[in-house]
Amino acid sequence: MKRIDLSHLDDLALGSVFLATGGGGDPHVPRLITEQAIKTYGPVTLIAPAALDDDAFIVPIGSVGAPTVSLELLPSVDEAARTIEAFEAHVGRKVDAVASFEIGGGNSLIPLVAAAGKGIPVVDGDGMGRALPEAQMMSYAIAGVNPTPALAMDYAGNQATFQTNTTEVYERHIRSFAMAAGGMITTAEHAMSGAELKRSVIPGTLSFSIELGRILRENRGQAEGLLKPLQEIFARSIYGQCQLVFQGKVVDKATRIVGGYDVGEVTIERFDGLGDPLKISIKNEYLLGKIDDRVIASVPDLIVIVDYETGTPINAERLRYGHRVAVFAVGCPDFYRTPDALRVVEPRCFGFDIDYVPLEQL
Amino acid sequence: MKRIDLSHLDDLALGSVFLATGGGGDPHVPRLITEQAIKTYGPVTLIAPAALDDDAFIVPIGSVGAPTVSLELLPSVDEAARTIEAFEAHVGRKVDAVASFEIGGGNSLIPLVAAAGKGIPVVDGDGMGRALPEAQMMSYAIAGVNPTPALAMDYAGNQATFQTNTTEVYERHIRSFAMAAGGMITTAEHAMSGAELKRSVIPGTLSFSIELGRILRENRGQAEGLLKPLQEIFARSIYGQCQLVFQGKVVDKATRIVGGYDVGEVTIERFDGLGDPLKISIKNEYLLGKIDDRVIASVPDLIVIVDYETGTPINAERLRYGHRVAVFAVGCPDFYRTPDALRVVEPRCFGFDIDYVPLEQL
Repeated sequence: MKRIDLSHLDDLALGSVFLATGGGGDPHVPRLITEQAIKTYGPVTLIAPAALDDDAFIVPIGSVGAPTVSLELLPSVDEAARTIEAFEAHVGRKVDAVASFEIGGGNSLIPLVAAAGKGIPVVDGDGMGRALPEAQMMSYAIAGVNPTPALAMDYAGNQATFQTNTTEVYERHIRSFAMAAGGMITTAEHAMSGAELKRSVIPGTLSFSIELGRILRENRGQAEGLLKPLQEIFARSIYGQCQLVFQGKVVDKATRIVGGYDVGEVTIERFDGLGDPLKISIKNEYLLGKIDDRVIASVPDLIVIVDYETGTPINAERLRYGHRVAVFAVGCPDFYRTPDALRVVEPRCFGFDIDYVPLEQL
Repeated sequence: MKRIDLSHLDDLALGSVFLATGGGGDPHVPRLITEQAIKTYGPVTLIAPAALDDDAFIVPIGSVGAPTVSLELLPSVDEAARTIEAFEAHVGRKVDAVASFEIGGGNSLIPLVAAAGKGIPVVDGDGMGRALPEAQMMSYAIAGVNPTPALAMDYAGNQATFQTNTTEVYERHIRSFAMAAGGMITTAEHAMSGAELKRSVIPGTLSFSIELGRILRENRGQAEGLLKPLQEIFARSIYGQCQLVFQGKVVDKATRIVGGYDVGEVTIERFDGLGDPLKISIKNEYLLGKIDDRVIASVPDLIVIVDYETGTPINAERLRYGHRVAVFAVGCPDFYRTPDALRVVEPRCFGFDIDYVPLEQL
């Protein structure tokens, strides 16, 4: 077992924004809260899925809402631990470890805050291997873990619990509660046994994200220089492929909050202004990249926009007109290329009328 | 203590539509379900508020949603009793009696279904003395009863619970859940002791509604003939005033579902086509009647539209172009003319920039 201490937080936050593919919520405030929690309660134990008892009780925890809201509606420092405590009271059972909904963005850090406050380990892994906008897209749900009993808490301590049979219905209920509570809540859901976690988790992503953050930090500089070290780390991971697919300037970007999601599009022109621009469709995350009618990369593969000069990944809610950027595409974990997974994450699930073609075949 | 049996249901349904002032949900399906419940479990005991033990545990129960939806999304026969059972499990305490949110419309009947199924009494009284669109407008909330713990169930058995401190926040949460669950749910909320109920209930409205329905049935016919018997029954009730304020034909009616409510306006012209028409603003209920700029009646007083030929009250979701109608105005119970009540039910709470003037002073 490893421990996550203060020295890991900057790299974790940086790596998680890369894996967030534009969504997942800005990690700045969650990082500050995690720092506070670790200073108060000490380092957090990281437990490998394989090291969990089969009958351990694990609950994933994270924020639900529109990433734009996470810039303004801040969670309280004790919201994550109080959510776990309220969840334990609701189900009448102690939680042995917490896990992440998604390794991307702020949701990689929320479980650390809960784990520190409660003195329990956090699982090295997550439910997406990236960030995706809806609960039924989590590997836990795809593998058949029941979404409820679930508990949600807002910044003011208001609580709701949910009981339903399908994650699709749960997603509708929790999303509407997030909107009614101001746009962002903390939830504990998809609770499961250690045995269930082992067959549903995307493993190792928390330690991978720290390692990825270190690579980004040590190779800070123009995007071309990042490509080789990124290809090396992804090649020996569950992701595989990493390609540098575009470089240029953001000439248009617009998102609106629709049904609790940030929905919109960003347009990037080459620096020399020649050729067709790259258009990337957004629903919280960067989901589909096209040049004219040609698909460059699509969900569930990862599309990542980084600052051209520094290689720092940029979340969709921070992306602005005039940003000089590079766009990377990364293969998704094999789990997300299975028929069960593609049924809920293929491009058509997001309204794009195309078949999924794996990155390396495009 | 009295009992409510099958012989009371038609009158109760009829009286409750009059007191619903256009909203409250259509009672047709709730009446059929109540009939089924009473046939299965026997008559329901009606208990006067004063007869309750001070430490009895009472929970109001009813439907929450947009009345238009109640015509299509039908509750299941056992939804009300199952909601009480789930509520008891949630709070860890047996419910001694159920009460109504509002005597208007289908919500006068839902507690009877729960009471029959559970074999417990229903309180003779309600939380509005009419129908009103939002939870914080209930006399229970105005008198300081906490809205939560609350439990909601949909037709499919999906459940949610809520924990919050103010009814305004609770209203936002429960309304969003109703929309996410398809537009109509059954909820148990504002649970209280017998002592709390005695100081917060609008008393006697369930037996009054049955009596009112009998008057409407026995005097079925043109609206002018109804006026005298209606004035007699209201004069000896908590309502007082009853006036016949307009007769004519519906020449325009439009509502949309906005934020979970039916919102719109109906326009009624005199039969002779002379003079300005009466315009009535709707938010689930008929809230404000104006001829040109002159206010004829306004919330919290009751505005009731009945069929001109039969005197049968017509809910807003059933009102159509061409309906020949009469419009009655009825004074509200004194409770709703107190400053605490007017703070949440005066015309400005519905977006009308006018002061409340009691009916008898207009």
